[in-house]
Amino acid sequence: MLKKINISQKLAQFKDHWNPRIVGELNYQHIKLDKLKGEFIWHKHDSEDEMFLVLRGSLKIAFRDRTETINENEMIIVPKGVEHKPIAEEEVSIMLFEPATTINTGNLDNERTRKNLEYL
Amino acid sequence: MLKKINISQKLAQFKDHWNPRIVGELNYQHIKLDKLKGEFIWHKHDSEDEMFLVLRGSLKIAFRDRTETINENEMIIVPKGVEHKPIAEEEVSIMLFEPATTINTGNLDNERTRKNLEYL
Repeated sequence: MLKKINISQKLAQFKDHWNPRIVGELNYQHIKLDKLKGEFIWHKHDSEDEMFLVLRGSLKIAFRDRTETINENEMIIVPKGVEHKPIAEEEVSIMLFEPATTINTGNLDNERTRKNLEYL
Repeated sequence: MLKKINISQKLAQFKDHWNPRIVGELNYQHIKLDKLKGEFIWHKHDSEDEMFLVLRGSLKIAFRDRTETINENEMIIVPKGVEHKPIAEEEVSIMLFEPATTINTGNLDNERTRKNLEYL
C-alpha cells in the first residue's frame, strides 16, 4: 500500500471511456481515475457525495437547474441525492474520490454500470 | 456545497506553512490544501490513512526504513500506524484527503498541531 502513485503513468495505462480504475484506497474510500468522452446518463447517488477533480480537459456537469464547467485543476463535489449528468465534449481525464461502495451509475444499474473495477 | 473549487485560486489565498486549509468536505472526509517548507516532525496517525498529492514542488517523506520523493502529480498513501516525517527542501503545495477527524500531528499534540482549521 505504501507506494508512490504517478498519475500520468496510471492514465497512460488505459484508453477506454467511462470505466473508472482504482489507483488508491484509504479509510474505506477509493481514489479512481477515469477518462470520459461523450455524454453520460442522468443519475444520482443516494448515500454518497462524489468528487470530480479534472486533471486534463474540461468537463461539463449538467444539473437539473444549470450546467457547470469544470476545467483543469478545478473540482466539484456533488452532494448525495443530487441528479447530475457528466458531459465531455472532448476527452477529459478525472480523479474521483469516493467511498468504496460507490457505483458509477448511482441509483441505476444498466449497460453503463461498471462493477468489480480494475486496480491499476 | 455544490460549488466549483479552483485549486490555484485557493492556494493563492494563503502563504504560511504547515497550516492546512479545508477546501471541500464529502462523506466525512476533508479535502485540504497545505503549503510545506522545511522539516515537519515524526508522527503517525493511529486510526487514519493519509494521502498526500503533490500539486507543486517536490516532497520528501521519511519513513523509518527509507525516504520517498513525491514529485508533482504524484501521490502517496501513508497507512495508519506508519511513522513518517514530511520534508520540503523548497516550498511544496499539496492536497490531502483524510477523515474529518485527522489531526496534522497525528499522535502528538504540540506547537505544530493545528486544530479548528480554516475553511477556504
